[in-house]
This record gives sequence, structure tokens and C-alpha cells, in this order.
Amino acid sequence: MKLRNLVGQRFKERPADCVIDSHALMIRGGYMKGVGSGIFSEYPILRRVTRKIENIIREEMERIGGQEVMFPVVMPAQLWKESGRFESVGKELVRFKDRSDTDLVLGMTHEEAAVQLVREYGRSYQQYPFMIYQFQRKFRDEARPRAGMIRVREFTMKDAYSFHTSRKDLEEYYAKCLEAYRRIFRRVGIPQVEVVASDSGMMGGNVSHEFMLLTDAGEDSVVVCGSCDYRANLEAVDEPAACGRSAGAALEGVCPCCGSRSLSIRRGIEVGNIFQLGTKYTESMNMRYINESGAAEYPVMGCYGIGIGRLAASVCEARHDNRGPVWPISIAPWEVHLCCLRPDDGETREISDTLYQKLQSEGIEVIYDDRNKIQAGEMFADADLIGAPVRVIVSPRNTKDGVVEIVARDSAHMDNQMRKKVPVGRAFSEVCDLRRKLWSDGEMYDEGQRKNF
Amino acid sequence: MKLRNLVGQRFKERPADCVIDSHALMIRGGYMKGVGSGIFSEYPILRRVTRKIENIIREEMERIGGQEVMFPVVMPAQLWKESGRFESVGKELVRFKDRSDTDLVLGMTHEEAAVQLVREYGRSYQQYPFMIYQFQRKFRDEARPRAGMIRVREFTMKDAYSFHTSRKDLEEYYAKCLEAYRRIFRRVGIPQVEVVASDSGMMGGNVSHEFMLLTDAGEDSVVVCGSCDYRANLEAVDEPAACGRSAGAALEGVCPCCGSRSLSIRRGIEVGNIFQLGTKYTESMNMRYINESGAAEYPVMGCYGIGIGRLAASVCEARHDNRGPVWPISIAPWEVHLCCLRPDDGETREISDTLYQKLQSEGIEVIYDDRNKIQAGEMFADADLIGAPVRVIVSPRNTKDGVVEIVARDSAHMDNQMRKKVPVGRAFSEVCDLRRKLWSDGEMYDEGQRKNF
Repeated sequence: MKLRNLVGQRFKERPADCVIDSHALMIRGGYMKGVGSGIFSEYPILRRVTRKIENIIREEMERIGGQEVMFPVVMPAQLWKESGRFESVGKELVRFKDRSDTDLVLGMTHEEAAVQLVREYGRSYQQYPFMIYQFQRKFRDEARPRAGMIRVREFTMKDAYSFHTSRKDLEEYYAKCLEAYRRIFRRVGIPQVEVVASDSGMMGGNVSHEFMLLTDAGEDSVVVCGSCDYRANLEAVDEPAACGRSAGAALEGVCPCCGSRSLSIRRGIEVGNIFQLGTKYTESMNMRYINESGAAEYPVMGCYGIGIGRLAASVCEARHDNRGPVWPISIAPWEVHLCCLRPDDGETREISDTLYQKLQSEGIEVIYDDRNKIQAGEMFADADLIGAPVRVIVSPRNTKDGVVEIVARDSAHMDNQMRKKVPVGRAFSEVCDLRRKLWSDGEMYDEGQRKNF
Repeated sequence: MKLRNLVGQRFKERPADCVIDSHALMIRGGYMKGVGSGIFSEYPILRRVTRKIENIIREEMERIGGQEVMFPVVMPAQLWKESGRFESVGKELVRFKDRSDTDLVLGMTHEEAAVQLVREYGRSYQQYPFMIYQFQRKFRDEARPRAGMIRVREFTMKDAYSFHTSRKDLEEYYAKCLEAYRRIFRRVGIPQVEVVASDSGMMGGNVSHEFMLLTDAGEDSVVVCGSCDYRANLEAVDEPAACGRSAGAALEGVCPCCGSRSLSIRRGIEVGNIFQLGTKYTESMNMRYINESGAAEYPVMGCYGIGIGRLAASVCEARHDNRGPVWPISIAPWEVHLCCLRPDDGETREISDTLYQKLQSEGIEVIYDDRNKIQAGEMFADADLIGAPVRVIVSPRNTKDGVVEIVARDSAHMDNQMRKKVPVGRAFSEVCDLRRKLWSDGEMYDEGQRKNF
């Protein structure tokens, strides 16, 4: 599409109220706009990013046998009374009454709704295991929303719920889901995400993990061992460690896994979490199945969450420079950003119009900046904020030399070959080559989702 | 996927509380489950249908230049106070307070949020026209939810908002949007939907249209002229008719357009609506742009809605028999339903397993029923409720004859050629042929979205 038509505005100044870079850059780039405390609207550029993230997650959920469903945002309080959480959860849970005085709540998570949906379906052991997931809005009345899309009150979440006839079966599926999460974080461009033992908090259950992007902008504290793989949320160091030993030692600076004293505390953003819930919800909500011997038992559950907006902001936090986000090609709003400097110059305009048409007709996502009377500096600043991985520059000077310029957005981190001038006639194939390289270098796709190059 | 793994159960009995067929069939087929009054969860089979509907709508919105955004479900009441609707709308609008005593509302429509998002972007006439749309959950505290997914309290809606610098420009865009809606209803399988003059109600503005599926199951009353094209919601017959004459005459049984006395009243389901809002929201919320002469003006708005779940239920209402929905191939949960009768018969199992693999590897959506010890009658009853347009039957008797059976789901309405036995070796290509025919007969796709056959 043409940049001149893109709804949303970009600007130079860092907003005063932004404490972390991703927040500042996403506001400056016209990604979202605050509507109220911890409540945002997404402009088209961010919606493109979040839709791509959703599609990657959907593919990975389907790959491990997940089936997409949809639960409501508004639920009868009765459902939350069954599980006991209507009383046990604090002010984060919004409670209100409808016109006939029935108590309702806003879904902040959907364990109750999941059990309600499959309570009858799951009556025989033969139906197990199964996993259902959704993408849905959640509202949590957080006391302190902060950091743009990182900690908000309303957000889109992928939440998944698995049901099993034994703890062993849950553990096996949990491991599969953990691998699916690793693939998701790799495919959205942050393979460095760490798996960390966590505290199960209000979810219940006793085994859970968080996926942490370690960054100074994070609000969680993570204990990291320099000698072994031990990682734990600081809130969870008094729980048993994965290695089986008592983890309390970590509080005294000793790694509970390898015994070394090389523990440090890092900041992190939680980009996903997985829980072995056990029978907390199936027992309280009386969901039972008949096992092979004809006896009634409670199914064992797991649940698995990823916040979509937070993940987008986290990728931006992990991949940006002072000019803007450096989106991976898998979730960039567009793959190619085509700048036509001086579109009033006939030949220059023709070269870039032709390239635009060609890229579009080949199914390559391109944003085309053909605005008149814009300084090159302003055009490039806008392109930096949009963060497409491939940039093509057509200008009168290049036209005179019979070339166009091709630049990789993350050239700052790579060698000079990422910026080159190529003859006009080779522009299209060179763009395709760079695009293909970016998809495969980052392992941005998997077997079965192979890009059509 | 295999039917044995599909989450959701099917059953024979018509539930007592279902007043219309689509509701009964969708409950019996495991499409959704009630969570509370007017609140449903979608099982995987319905989520497949609603996702396909969403994709068709998205394509048609993009085709007329729409840009996808996302507004929040929860909004500060302040925004609705600006427009005056916080006071003017009745109990349908849910109002509540957050932990810091701020008034919030649940979005039942998003005109206010749309104006808030683009108030700064739209400051210059050069940015116009533009259209933004979203898919988002809405909650309306309806007094009388009824008829399954037809009138609910919570639902997913595609809502679109266009902004213009003149009424004429709005009218031109409105006409384009009306055509996009016609394409949408054709592509989801109900081309018979009628465009009807309507009352603008709480939305404001003075020109609006509803898209009505005429059916006895509807809850709206539509005045239909037997002699000309005049159609109006009974609630709107005292408004000026499209033909320019006073419409009050309709109340006395005289068509306000052609003067004939051949008016009748039909029932209909409103499957979409479009409104010329004018400057109601831009004025009240003080959104202005600078025109070419440097003067400040209020933009003119249009808005355009379609409820996703209601549309799915309406297609079911329009296209079903007493055995189940007859989904068009464009939104059917699966294109092909493969029944293997007696999978314990080795050769029969091999033929159907091979066909299943082949269909899947060619990207054809297939649900495979290979359950053991299920009577043929039960298998077919389940297939009827799932409503895939192409059915393939592999059975020991067919195997002995070296054939498989191919049946079109809507054979009841077509000639006998829609049910035939074909040699095993030709099964795959015959399925492909029927599939192609169903896509093209129904004009289920458009140029640009050509299926890859």
C-alpha cells in the first residue's frame, strides 16, 4: 500500500511519559494510541504485526493438535463461584451486574470457561487427551499499568487448555507445548527467550514455567546461574527446583542446581507462561470422566498463555536501534519499504512505480512512499519507524546512474554488503534474494509452513 | 482432521428451548454452548466457520481500501460522555467502575473510539477519505436474547468507519460499501439478502440500510412491494423513501415508490447494516480538519457493521434441511467429509486412509470419520450435522465393487448426478472436480481471491 494512505501519524519527539524504548518508538511510529489507563487502540501498522504473530501462534498450536475455540469475554459470576475464584481473586477481576441484577465478570483468564465447554464432551477416557485454544480479549484491572503494551489492562491473549487422564500424560504434553513455545519465540524473532521456573500464583498447580526475555526494560526479576542452566523467577526461588533440590538456597546466593555461587539477578519481560494445573479446576467444577475400569476420575489440566500485544512490544524492545524497531521479516508490517525520492522526476517515478507493481503482483508485501515534497531525511526517518527489513531507494541521482539502492534495515548490525546499488534491471531479483535470505537466516518459518519464494 | 478427535458432541434430540431451526441444529451439531443468558462459547467446528466468514469480510474490506485496526472492548465513560451517548443510550450499555472509581463502559459499538483514534491523524483534508475497520467483541445487555446466535448479548462484530470531507464523497463510498456487502453475502452463500431502508436509531444520521435475510425465523418486519424494488424496515416506513417520496403511505398499504397496493410484510434477520452518520460524532467530539482554503470543518462519517456469529447462524437458517446445515463450500467447516464404514476391514481402511492422506497433502480440508463400531446411520447423521458439501463413503461393499461413493450434501435439492459411485482409482480426481464445481457454481470466490485448484 501507499504510505500516504496509511492511517496513523509518525513524529520525532520522544513522548515524555514513555519509560521504555519500545513504548516510545511504537507511539512515535503510529502503532497505537492510549484510550484510557492501560487501554490502547491499535493502528493498522500494529494490527498487521499482531495478526502475523497470531498466525504463527495458530500454526504452532494446530501443529501440537490444538483446536481453536472461542470463549466469551463476559461470563456469569456463577462460573467463577464454582471454581472459588470469584472470592479468591482480588480487584483485578472486574465484577458487575447486568440489567436483571445477575452478577457478571470480565474474563481475565478462561480456565472456568474451558471446563464449562468440555464438561460433557470429556465424559469418557476415550476422548482424551485434547487441547483447545482461543485468541480473545482479556481485561485485568491492574493497579499499575505501565510501559506501553507491556503491562496493560486490556489485551488479546492466546490461551490454551489441555485435558489429560494422567499426570504423566500432562507432563508429556506440557513438554510438547514448551517446544511449541520455543518455536513461536524463534519464529517471531526472539530465540534468546529463556525458560524460567515460576510461581503458579492465582492459577494453582505446582509446576509452571515462564518464558522470559531478559532485558533491562523488564519488570520481573530472574535469578540466572552463570555455571548451569538454572533460571527462576525471583518470586519462585523458594519452590523446588527442576533439578529436584530445594531451591531456597538461591536466596543465599547458592545455585540450587549446581551449587555454584555464580547467581545473578537479571530483569526480564514475561512473554509467555505454561502451567500444570492438575485437578484444581476439574475438581472444584466437578468435571469427571469414566476411566477404562468404569470408575469416575477428575481430568488433569494444563494451561498455556501468550499475550499478543506484549509479545509485539517485546520483540520491538529486543530488536530496535535509536531510529526505530528492527522487525524480523516474519512479523514486520511489510517486507519491503520502497522510497521514491522526488517522485516529481518522471523517470525516477516510472522506475519505482514499475517496481512497486512488480513486487505487489508477486505477492511481496510492500509499503510505497511516493509522497511529494518530502525531504529524504524525513522519508528515511519514517521508514526507520516502520521498520521493514528491506528498503529500496529510487532517486534521481540513482536513476542517472541506472541503479537503485537496496538496504537491509539492520545493516547497522551487519557488514556493508547489506547496502548496495544494483542496476535497475536487477532490482526486483535482488530484492527477492535479500528477502529469501532474511526468511531463512532467521529460521522464520518451519517445514510445513515453507514460504513460497 | 479425524472426527474422533473433534472437541464437541453431537446428538439426535431437538433441544426443547430452541425456537428456530438453526439454533437447534447448531446445538445438536456441537457448534456452540450457552454460557449464560445470550452468551455462548464456540466449539472448534463453529470457530472454523466464523474464521472463514471473517476472512471473506476482511478481503472485501481491504478491497475497498479499508485498513484493519483494533479498538478496546472496555472504554473510559468519558469518551461516551463526549458524544452524549453515555446519557442517551439505555441499559444496553454496560457501565461499571474500575478499582480507582473511574467510570468505564463495555463497547457495544465503536464510533467514539474511531473518532478518538483518528482525531489527530485526520487534521488535513489531504488525508481523506479513509476507512478503518476491526473485528472485535461487543457486549450489549439486550433485554431479550433469543434464537441462539441470532440475538445474543456478546458477539464478534466487524465494524467499519469511514471519514470524508463531503457528503457527496461519503455517498460514493457508501455505495461502494453496499456493493462490498452484496459480495460478502454472495460469497458466504446467501445472495438472496435484500437491501432495505432502515431507521437509524441510536446511531444517528439520516440515511441507513439494513441487509435482510427474509425468513420466517426473523425477528424484524420488512415491508416488501410486489410491484417494484421498495423494501423498508417496518420501523422506518415513516421516513423518506429512497425514491424521494414520503414513505408514510406505506402505513396505509400503499407503496411510497410505485403507488401500488401490493405491499406485504415479511419477517427478516438483519445480517448487516450501513449508516451515513454525517457529522454527529465529529461535531460532538470536536474532530476537525483544515480544508483546502484553510478553514476548519467537521469530517462526515459512515459506519458499516456485520455480526459474525449471527451471519453464520443466518446462513444455517437459510441453508438447512431437517438433517442439518447445508454449508456452502466457502464457509463449511471442512470441504470434504470422508466416511470409512467398518475401518476394521483391512482393504476398506487402506483405501480411505490413502484418500485421506492424498486429500490432505493437496491442501483440501477434510474431516475423516474412521471410528470403529459406529453404525452407518449414526455416521451419516453426524456428517449431516457437520454439513460438509462433499461426502465420500468408503465401505466393504463398495470396496468389493472397486468403487467409492461421492455425494453432494445438498443432493436433496439437486439431480441424481450428485450421488455417484466411481472407481477407487478415480476417487481423488472426482472429489476435486466436485469441489471445483461447488466453488464456481456458487461464485464463492472473486477475482484476486481465486482458489488454487
